[in-house]
Amino acid sequence: MTLVLAARAGKITPEMEWVASRENVDVTVIQKGLAEGTIVIPRNILRKDFNYTGIGQGLRIKVNALIGTSSDRIDWEMEERKLANVEEVGCDALMDLSTGGDIDGMRRLILSKANIAVGSVPVYQAAVEAIESRGSIVDMTADDMFASIEKHAADGVDFMAIHTALNFDVIKRLQTSGRVTDVVSRGGAFLTGWMLHNELENPLYEQFDRLLEILKKYDVTLSMGDAIRPGSTADSLDGAQLEGLIVAGELVARAQEAGIQVMVEGPGHVPMNHIEATMLLQKRVCHGAPYFILGNLATDVAPGYDHITAAIGGALAGATGADFLCYVTPAEHLGLPTEQDVRDGAIAAQIAAHVADLAKGNKQAWERDLQMARARVALDTDRQIELSIDPEKSRAAFSQKGAGGHCAACGEECASDVAAKYFGIG
Amino acid sequence: MTLVLAARAGKITPEMEWVASRENVDVTVIQKGLAEGTIVIPRNILRKDFNYTGIGQGLRIKVNALIGTSSDRIDWEMEERKLANVEEVGCDALMDLSTGGDIDGMRRLILSKANIAVGSVPVYQAAVEAIESRGSIVDMTADDMFASIEKHAADGVDFMAIHTALNFDVIKRLQTSGRVTDVVSRGGAFLTGWMLHNELENPLYEQFDRLLEILKKYDVTLSMGDAIRPGSTADSLDGAQLEGLIVAGELVARAQEAGIQVMVEGPGHVPMNHIEATMLLQKRVCHGAPYFILGNLATDVAPGYDHITAAIGGALAGATGADFLCYVTPAEHLGLPTEQDVRDGAIAAQIAAHVADLAKGNKQAWERDLQMARARVALDTDRQIELSIDPEKSRAAFSQKGAGGHCAACGEECASDVAAKYFGIG
Repeated sequence: MTLVLAARAGKITPEMEWVASRENVDVTVIQKGLAEGTIVIPRNILRKDFNYTGIGQGLRIKVNALIGTSSDRIDWEMEERKLANVEEVGCDALMDLSTGGDIDGMRRLILSKANIAVGSVPVYQAAVEAIESRGSIVDMTADDMFASIEKHAADGVDFMAIHTALNFDVIKRLQTSGRVTDVVSRGGAFLTGWMLHNELENPLYEQFDRLLEILKKYDVTLSMGDAIRPGSTADSLDGAQLEGLIVAGELVARAQEAGIQVMVEGPGHVPMNHIEATMLLQKRVCHGAPYFILGNLATDVAPGYDHITAAIGGALAGATGADFLCYVTPAEHLGLPTEQDVRDGAIAAQIAAHVADLAKGNKQAWERDLQMARARVALDTDRQIELSIDPEKSRAAFSQKGAGGHCAACGEECASDVAAKYFGIG
Repeated sequence: MTLVLAARAGKITPEMEWVASRENVDVTVIQKGLAEGTIVIPRNILRKDFNYTGIGQGLRIKVNALIGTSSDRIDWEMEERKLANVEEVGCDALMDLSTGGDIDGMRRLILSKANIAVGSVPVYQAAVEAIESRGSIVDMTADDMFASIEKHAADGVDFMAIHTALNFDVIKRLQTSGRVTDVVSRGGAFLTGWMLHNELENPLYEQFDRLLEILKKYDVTLSMGDAIRPGSTADSLDGAQLEGLIVAGELVARAQEAGIQVMVEGPGHVPMNHIEATMLLQKRVCHGAPYFILGNLATDVAPGYDHITAAIGGALAGATGADFLCYVTPAEHLGLPTEQDVRDGAIAAQIAAHVADLAKGNKQAWERDLQMARARVALDTDRQIELSIDPEKSRAAFSQKGAGGHCAACGEECASDVAAKYFGIG
């Protein structure tokens, strides 16, 4: 029985209790959200007793990291270190996007080590294997795609990005909407190319019930891939994006009806003045399903700093509806992320999520900020370190501080000291 | 004659023409903004032919950097390199906050080298000299304060942060509003301590006309210091902040009446859900004067990453009314910024300003994003480098790219390649 069906049957499961306890809400809030489709708890029935995360309405905003090999870089030990790093900085989930070397082995290693929800994009592996065995992505068969999905599910993957909301109606809009960047989703590009070359409808759309059966068997959460997400601010909220959203909404309803956990992936590049409307439309059209955004990158012109452009967009998106932020690293648009890039991306996304939680009035978030303010007034560096998003970084900086407990910035002319002296605080 | 009085007399000056040309607007827009007080062009009458910047309504959002010595670190060569760095990455102004060593010498060196507007905080120097000559900040005299302001003006400083909007009414609100962080402004803390110790009104408030005379003589732009800006999200929009804003509004009207250029400084720590209201209140109460914000830091808990918390808050603030963003470096709350910190802070603020310009529909900003999108589709890395916020960083990353023109991230499985193949673009 899936978590959705359990919730609808009035059952309380350990996963619901775990999430309720972490969020400091009554377990019936979680149960109701699962039953109605506004909350998901990604967890494959084969994976037990890890750090479950609840994603959706009324919950703290969560962060996802991306790791994995490519044909250019296959280093399992590095990927293991990245996994440890993203867990250490507090990411709630990660996706293995491996496309190089022994893809199955890498995924299974990550699943065995991770203590958080693990996602994947099975069509990447199907595409890579099609190139190897048949010479080209367009020679991939529908059965190849479903076999890859089933294999990932049987390995215990908790959630999967699957580009179901792509069909010829959407491609028609792509061709007529005058897009600048067409398709920037890798999975979306593979499938669009496959459809146009083979003149066949997207099997993941056409055989959606077949997909739901596999997901239901393992209670895998469907993360509906945003195949035609805008790849530039110029393309944001165009006809193609809206058409894709309409199709996504129809499929979300079918998945919810079938008792499958489903969330919807979103952009991508979104100028700030489009963010609130983008969140509203997704929630409206996709029946309140949790929104998993890949950014939002609030401008195109800052390569090397896209963890910052995504923190800006992600914070506003989180404040206006997004539930789950996929991190973006400084290497976005430039190359493969290093371990430092992974860490920087994970922390920037955590900041965005926390800023958005504050904006939404989350009590835990406000309490944490308040404690930090008090620690600063008291010049209590240990407490400041403890409350920091990145305690290690704070500790290193404070170890360089000058005499008197205050930092090196103002030295003896410390505003906090002066305030303490004349206001009697400190 | 000040620029304001010239504008009111129907004159067009070279400064107005320079700014109009850079903003791609008619010079009468600049003239009208100066006359009405919604635009300032900080420039001391003693400084000529530098890269003037217009700040205010209808103009691109501008960025200010902070440099200067402290008692812990006196390294003129480093400050010169910081100056070169902030000009290189496109900052529109900088402030010299020096408090260590030969403060006059440092300021004069910066004024001789800078090609952008230079600001200062004269009360810092007055306070440091009071400690040296009289033993304590509270032994500073009113004449010391005005002498410091006059000296900075005579040296050619273009704009000055002066904490005029602080009086005993504001201090009363501070004492009754239950603030967590009281006073975090350094100048504000000096003056608050001075007032409470001496039981004397703030001379910069009480003798405001004396101040205006000095500023008018050199046409120095008054940057009204936000002495009681909130130092934590918990204190945002409290009674003390509002009282300070009311006083600022009254003084702005007097400065505008006198034909002085004036802008108003603002917070500081502001949770995202307070930002729009903060911008609205300032514009309303301060008669449309340009708003110069120190952040906004959208959370307290990210020491080491406050360039990111400020980019989040600054972008939203810019989109909803702020005109001038003071950069925040990763060293904020931790210590003195290194040269790398200065660069990172300057770039993060540039990103926030550009994101906000996009959100406001600025044509130049949209054109730049569009060009970047086109360069990405064309896999034209030279053009991408040229359009980047930090071309140097993009160039270094692209030099590591793999074969085929695409970056190392996806290698052969490049979405842009696939899209180009099937959509016939590229």
